[in-house]
This record gives sequence, C-alpha cells and structure tokens, in this order.
Amino acid sequence: MKEFRFELLASDGAARTGVIHTPRGDIRTPAFMPVGTAATVKAMLPQSVRETGADILLGNTYHLMLRPGAERVARLGGLHKFMDWPRPILTDSGGFQVMSLSALRKISEEGVKFQSHIDGHAEFLSPERAMQIQRLLGSDIQMVFDECPALPATHAQIEKSMSLSMRWAGRSKIAFGEQSDEERAGRACFGIVQGGTFADLRLRSAEALKEIGFDGYAVGGLAVGEAQGAMFETLEATVPHLPHTQPRYLMGVGKPDDIVGAVLRGIDMFDCVLPTRSGRNGQAFTAQGALNLKNARFADDEAPLEAGCGCPACRQFSGPICTCGEIGRNHRRNVTELAQLGLLPAAHGDLRQAIAQSRLTDWVKDRLGGAQEMEDV
Amino acid sequence: MKEFRFELLASDGAARTGVIHTPRGDIRTPAFMPVGTAATVKAMLPQSVRETGADILLGNTYHLMLRPGAERVARLGGLHKFMDWPRPILTDSGGFQVMSLSALRKISEEGVKFQSHIDGHAEFLSPERAMQIQRLLGSDIQMVFDECPALPATHAQIEKSMSLSMRWAGRSKIAFGEQSDEERAGRACFGIVQGGTFADLRLRSAEALKEIGFDGYAVGGLAVGEAQGAMFETLEATVPHLPHTQPRYLMGVGKPDDIVGAVLRGIDMFDCVLPTRSGRNGQAFTAQGALNLKNARFADDEAPLEAGCGCPACRQFSGPICTCGEIGRNHRRNVTELAQLGLLPAAHGDLRQAIAQSRLTDWVKDRLGGAQEMEDV
Repeated sequence: MKEFRFELLASDGAARTGVIHTPRGDIRTPAFMPVGTAATVKAMLPQSVRETGADILLGNTYHLMLRPGAERVARLGGLHKFMDWPRPILTDSGGFQVMSLSALRKISEEGVKFQSHIDGHAEFLSPERAMQIQRLLGSDIQMVFDECPALPATHAQIEKSMSLSMRWAGRSKIAFGEQSDEERAGRACFGIVQGGTFADLRLRSAEALKEIGFDGYAVGGLAVGEAQGAMFETLEATVPHLPHTQPRYLMGVGKPDDIVGAVLRGIDMFDCVLPTRSGRNGQAFTAQGALNLKNARFADDEAPLEAGCGCPACRQFSGPICTCGEIGRNHRRNVTELAQLGLLPAAHGDLRQAIAQSRLTDWVKDRLGGAQEMEDV
Repeated sequence: MKEFRFELLASDGAARTGVIHTPRGDIRTPAFMPVGTAATVKAMLPQSVRETGADILLGNTYHLMLRPGAERVARLGGLHKFMDWPRPILTDSGGFQVMSLSALRKISEEGVKFQSHIDGHAEFLSPERAMQIQRLLGSDIQMVFDECPALPATHAQIEKSMSLSMRWAGRSKIAFGEQSDEERAGRACFGIVQGGTFADLRLRSAEALKEIGFDGYAVGGLAVGEAQGAMFETLEATVPHLPHTQPRYLMGVGKPDDIVGAVLRGIDMFDCVLPTRSGRNGQAFTAQGALNLKNARFADDEAPLEAGCGCPACRQFSGPICTCGEIGRNHRRNVTELAQLGLLPAAHGDLRQAIAQSRLTDWVKDRLGGAQEMEDV
C-alpha cells in the first residue's frame, strides 16, 4: 500500500512546490481544492472538474452528516464512489459550519450540541464523532475537530478557544489512530492552528500541534473578514513555526491574490467555494481582475476569458455564450465554473513552474502587477 | 464536398433503420435529437450530450433570432462554433414558437408579425426571413416556415391553414435555393406535412410537398395534446404517402412509447424537450416506466436507473446521488439529463438493431410489454 508522503521539489524564498503522494493519486502543490459541499461540485460533472486540473476535492463533514448521513454514504461504498471521484478527497471536520450555519450551539469540553440548519434536528459533534464521520466517508485527508470562535474577540477569548481546540486536536489524533490499520493505510490527519490574529497564540497553537504530531498542518480562523494585511501578517507569524517537511494548508482561501500572497509565505494548499459560486453567478477571475460576464460589453466579444489559457472553458467557448441573457444562463453555470477552476489550477501550474525555476518574484510582478505585493513580503 | 444523403439499411414492416450522411457527420436513424433551445442543452456540456450517443441537436430559430440574434451568431462564426457542437444541427423555422410563445400575432399571406415574449419588441417572420435566419445560423437541416394552427379547429380552418403552409413551403424552398452554392453544399431543406388529424388534408399536404420536392419530410401539428391513438392514426394516413427514400421526422415527440409507436409506422427522426426538462426535475424514463427520483425509496437504492444500460449516468452514478435532497439537487440536474438522453438513444440503438434483425415485434413486446401496442398496429 502506498503511503501518504509529501515530497518537496523546490523552494523560492518561503514559497514551495512539491507533490503530496497518496494511494488515490498525487496532489501537485501549491494546490487548489474545489469544494464539493454536498458530494458534488455544484452543476459540474466530476469529469469536468478533473479536466480543469484539480487533483483533490474537499467534502464537508457538516453537510454530509446531515444529508445523506455518513453511515448511509459508508453503506453505499464511501464518498469517492458516491460522487464518482476516484482521486483524493480532504474532508473538514464540521467545526466551521457548526459555527456559521447551525442554530442554538452549546459548546462544552465534550463537544458541540447544535440544531441542524435544515430541519432543526438536534445533533452532536465531538472530536471522536467528527473523526468517525470522516472515516465513514473514506476521506484521504481528515481534519481535526476545532472550535472556530466568532470575531471580533479579545485575546482572552481567543486564548480560551484555542486551548480547547488544542485539547480537541489531541483527542482527534487519538480517534484517528483508532481506525483499523486497513482503514488508516495511506490516510492522513491534519492539525489546525488557531489563535486569531495574535502572534503569541498562533505560536503556542503551532507548538501544541507539533507536540501531538500530524501529517500536515492547516491554518484556520483566517479569511473570516479580516483585512488581507492582517491575514498575511498572521501567516508570517505562523508558517515559520510549522514543520518544513509537511504540507501547509490555508483554509477557506480562494481569491487569486490571496492565494499568491499565501504561497509567497509558504502555504501549499487552499480551498474555497468562491470560484465555483461566483462562476455560477457569471463572474470570472482573470489576470486582468474579476470580470462580470453578464455585462453587455461581452456580448460580441470573441476573446476567451483569459488569453492563452488552455482550460476547457477558454478553449471551447467564446465570451458571448456566457453573456447573451437566456442563452448564457445555462452555459454560464457550466462554462464559467470550468473557467474559474481552470484558471485557478492553471495559475497554480504557472506558480509551480515559477517556484521551480526560482523566478516567483518576476511572475508575481507580471501576473498581478504586484509591486506593492512584493514590497509587503 | 460530401452530400446530404439518406441511406436505408433495413426495414421491418413499416419500421426502418438507416443513416443520414451529412458533411458534419452521420446521423443513425431512428434518431432522437436533444433540444438545445438557446444554443445549449440546458445544464449540460456538449461533450456530455455527445457521450449519450446523440448524433444531432435541434436549435430553435425563434429563440435564437430574439437572443442573441441570428446576425450576431453568424458574425461569431455560426451556431456550431457558438455552442461548441461540431456535428449536425437541425433548426426549426420558428413557426411553432411564434404560435405558442409570442403575443399579438398577426398572420398575413406575407408572414407573421408578433411581439417577442421577452420584451414585447415587434418582430416579423416570413418564409424568406425564417430561411435566412437558418442560413445565418449555419443549420445543416433547415425546416420550412409553416403555420401551426391552434387546436381544436374545424376541417375548414385546418384546410385554410394547411394551404397557407403549403404556399409558404414553396417560398421556403425557393429561399433555401437562393443560398450560395457554398452555403448550400451538404445542407438539406425539409418540408412539413400539416392537416391536423384529417386524413384527406394530410394526403393533400403530402402531395403538395412532394410536388415542390424536399430532402426530407416532417410531420408537424401532432403531439399538441391529441390522444396517442389519434396521433398514430394520423401517421398511418400520412407516412405511406411520403417518399420511401428520404428521412421522415415526427416533430415534438419524445415519450418512449410515442417514439416506438411512430417508428413502427415508419418515422426516422424525433425531437422533444421532454427528456431534458423532466430530467432536470428528477424524473427518469426507464423500461419500467417513469421514475420520480425525488422519492424517498431511492435514497438507499444502489441500482442504476436502468439495469444493463451503459449510458454515462447509469455507469457512473447510483440512485442515491439523485435523491438525497440537497445532495441530489445539483447532480440530479446533470445526471438524470444524461440518463434521459442516454436511455433514449440507447433505446434507439436497440431499436435500430431490432429493425436490422427483423425482430422489432418481439423487441416491442419485451420492452414495452406491448401486447396492446402491437394489436393497434
């Protein structure tokens, strides 16, 4: 059985490019993970998602535990079969959605009682149950269960929350270890650094996680509304304390300039619903910025969304199909999602090459006109 | 340049199987044409449509003339390029939608003035303009402009309408002939038999069209609410008067048992929005009848939609992905449309083989449990 293993290929400053080897296939880093919330990347067939260059998808523990239920998915052969995606899947632990979607949360040392946002049904998540669900789903990369505190919050509040998350991280790791050898083979468990934007708490959190020992380390609790500068500063205070030899994952980030800034600070993996969600609404991210394809000026424009881009949408469709009202409505859903996901992995392909060739600084300047960006680093 | 040519391969009773050769590819008959109303088969990428076995799509003159406009499509390289479908396209003439969708119609000998159902804009369609639009779109099979009378109607009303449609058919043929040789090469023009459910009018209409001379003959004005028996009787009164050597197309029919009954009566081509529309709503046509995939009983059912079916949906997805509420909503749109289109062309593949092997009677009995069906023929 192949093992889960991170191979670092090249660095350029703090930025890295590499490959995460898993039994279900390789993940080239920096990697963007499209989000298949409820076992589907909305409005796209798995084959189309793969054609955009995605190596791995993200599935949501919270959504899947409520509907159709982790036990049902397991009975039907696991999440990979259920969604017809044979490649790697990372699952979150449900902690973030419990805070953002559910009602009447009650947090204790044991875990979180909450009401389903769908039907008000009483539910419970703990480190043990979150890991059990991810095991039932058959996830390749399983995330520890953590508390995601509401912001703004004081240093004392964040410290208390981070400390609870670190105790839960320990219990999550134990629960992960209790899978059978067969279940666990080639699967990974990632810890999640918390601590808000407080450098001292981030450091303590990173140290606590390293003490437990994980296959990879995520940075959580960012991209929740703070300024980009604060996010980048927090990364600078966190990433240097994470093991060099293991993958680093910034949770919930999908805007191209956020991704580039985080790569420059040593992050390897990303996920976000933003590309697919904005794609369904007719917005496309390009090197020239975000375009609203419903705009009349695109109606006669034959240019592809991104000049020189080889993604399926840019290769096959011209602008007008995305813009002509009724005409575009259906294709737009498919086509601009393809483009969004295509552009992001394509950007990563470029990024990966730029890092490997030690010319990331020039690439960022070319790509983002990023003078200011570079000064900040 | 390859010509448009119908090759009859085998007959079984009145049923036939063959191939329509066109410069853009072969169409195996009996053929079902998925409808790409506004230059897209809703919610599906062209590649997925092709994978279901579809050889030809149908485009709507009425929808495309209003949005994005025929001249715009021509400027952008034609409908095939616009919708990324390099294979044959048949376009209707807009006559049916003018009657069913638009407001304030005023019919004269010259043509029809009407208001766009989108913005109330004044529009005009005549045989000459309808053929011009189809030429601008670059359609491979162009349909004559006809009047589709509202039903019920008297013999006298239908006779008057049919006579007008026959004069328009003559003008349509002349307009089709006025394309440049380059434009016309390999393209076909089909006449449309009208006459309601009156056998004498159908006969007169068929004779009038043969007098003009077309590359294929459609039966229009059916599947508009009449009983299946009346539709079949009208086909029996019409089809024997159409040339044996050219394709015959029953417009607007897509229910499996209607298709089979019409094939038994000598029809070669079909189109309908029903498979894709009902697919988007979670209904699947199978040999066991129509299934509502939102039904809770499918939630734990691992069986494919159709046992033994090799279509992409049956191959890749099990029932539950189509049924689990939120989970199924997005996939259902894609998956059951794939299945619908897959099942129909798959049924046609079976049909074609049964005809070629002179065992259509047995096939119908097996497939539809069609004792009554067979007695009627």
